[in-house]
Amino acid sequence: MLYMIGLGLGDAKDITVKGLEVLRRCSRVYLEAYTSVLTVGKEVLEEFYGRKLILADREEVEQEANNILKDADISDVAFLVVGDPFGATTHSDLILRATKLGIPYRVIHNASIMNAVGCCGLQLYRFGETVSVVFWTDTWRPESFFDKVKRNRQNGMHTLCLLVWKWLGSLSLYTKLVVLIELQKGWAAFVSRDIKVKEQSLENLIKGRKIYEPPHYMSVNQAAQQLLEIVQNQRIRGEEPAVTEETLCVGLARVGAEDQKIAAGTLQQMCTVDLGGPLHSLIITGGSLHPLEMEMLSLFSIPEKSSESQSIDGL
Amino acid sequence: MLYMIGLGLGDAKDITVKGLEVLRRCSRVYLEAYTSVLTVGKEVLEEFYGRKLILADREEVEQEANNILKDADISDVAFLVVGDPFGATTHSDLILRATKLGIPYRVIHNASIMNAVGCCGLQLYRFGETVSVVFWTDTWRPESFFDKVKRNRQNGMHTLCLLVWKWLGSLSLYTKLVVLIELQKGWAAFVSRDIKVKEQSLENLIKGRKIYEPPHYMSVNQAAQQLLEIVQNQRIRGEEPAVTEETLCVGLARVGAEDQKIAAGTLQQMCTVDLGGPLHSLIITGGSLHPLEMEMLSLFSIPEKSSESQSIDGL
Repeated sequence: MLYMIGLGLGDAKDITVKGLEVLRRCSRVYLEAYTSVLTVGKEVLEEFYGRKLILADREEVEQEANNILKDADISDVAFLVVGDPFGATTHSDLILRATKLGIPYRVIHNASIMNAVGCCGLQLYRFGETVSVVFWTDTWRPESFFDKVKRNRQNGMHTLCLLVWKWLGSLSLYTKLVVLIELQKGWAAFVSRDIKVKEQSLENLIKGRKIYEPPHYMSVNQAAQQLLEIVQNQRIRGEEPAVTEETLCVGLARVGAEDQKIAAGTLQQMCTVDLGGPLHSLIITGGSLHPLEMEMLSLFSIPEKSSESQSIDGL
Repeated sequence: MLYMIGLGLGDAKDITVKGLEVLRRCSRVYLEAYTSVLTVGKEVLEEFYGRKLILADREEVEQEANNILKDADISDVAFLVVGDPFGATTHSDLILRATKLGIPYRVIHNASIMNAVGCCGLQLYRFGETVSVVFWTDTWRPESFFDKVKRNRQNGMHTLCLLVWKWLGSLSLYTKLVVLIELQKGWAAFVSRDIKVKEQSLENLIKGRKIYEPPHYMSVNQAAQQLLEIVQNQRIRGEEPAVTEETLCVGLARVGAEDQKIAAGTLQQMCTVDLGGPLHSLIITGGSLHPLEMEMLSLFSIPEKSSESQSIDGL
């Protein structure tokens, strides 16, 4: 049996009791290390779980899925995923491979950012399509995801913006091409929350050199600044932007962890609010809010003076 | 401290290790018993958790929240919620009350139907607004939620339909009025997945008699039949329905449990597919699917002949 086990959001103890029991009796335990970032290290997990973990990075999953699935028809293999196993496409891929090999699978669910964002008080059912905000480079500055934000807002729905990796480093060139094609087709969240732990420079990536740069996570500040630049571009083109400096947003950092931070304020305020270290997510609200949503957000509102004195520089 | 602890989807062991540790050291442990249905009984939870649980039904939470919060400033109190604590509005309410009393709170997240539906292979980020499908009575046959399904489909987004309780039994008359007003305002999912454990007949409810009927959960079959009736009504009115008998849907039952069942097929097929006991959810797909979504759904497709021989009767 292949067990797909969600690890939840925060640390080692966010695994479910069921998940822990299952992984402890599996013959091999893989840890996906490519779609999200653990707030704790692999060693901490290993100590708490009492098991050695085999790191499965993206290349492992795509090119060596057969290693993971080896003998899973006669023994139990666990594949651990930060959050819930169904946040990223690739896990469907592993299940499909298993099914083709006649290997049964079971999913042990857990919290993911997709449902835990409800902690800010915005109603989950009022969220529209989720978008990914990617790091811009000098030559690659996609704005297409903004159409989805616009559509969500026109329909009164909130938008969860997953803030993604600096560049598509650590993907194989093939995967990278697939991702770029998918992005072109508007599947902006194809690799949602796919924040790279290992980073390659574009040059190294093209040359196939596996030299990784330090990871670089997008902050709410950076995402808000990119969004405001898109708003400016739309104004220049004479379009009516669906979002303005005054649009109510919510910044979230390290959701589920002890030092979780939530801040509600305008998009302008999101450019300067200090939420600390990764991971960050940003919500653009859908306009009219339910009174209970308003009241909950007020618990997290940014004090006026802390942001008014600052301006959006450095874009 | 007030701890809001998600119990996840299935049974006692779906609680996280962190959640279990916290509840075991709390001085009082409440179990919400009104927004969802446990697949196991309170006694099973009590035995596994090693703690007595105090049932908090809706009236308890709304009218006696102060009991729950009593002394929570000097001791730890746990409030257990099936799924994740932020599936239903009322839990925001409890947090707001706590905050007003100066009581700190912490949320321990878990899987909920809102993210676990990803297990069918449809991409979570492509879901639009969630809707609730409520039981029709002779005099109350709301169709307004269908506009949201239409809007989602027009934008290529999937719709998760939460299938709710037979009637708004066990709510206080005040809450019931609030819910009805909210539904009127289009907040159809205000009490999402708010499946009643205790049911009152309309007559008993109006007369204020707390006589409860056996619970009655909506099945995928019933929801699909109601949806097809709305489609027929729209055709009669000369409108072009956004959904037809042939629209691809996914029925899910007991997500996360050992005997979970998923079936993919047309809306017509959803009228007769046998998914077994509660809880059920229904997804109306958003039209064009990603190849990986298609491939995953094919794992769950209903065999042709099992549904073709049956027709939609009993509406």
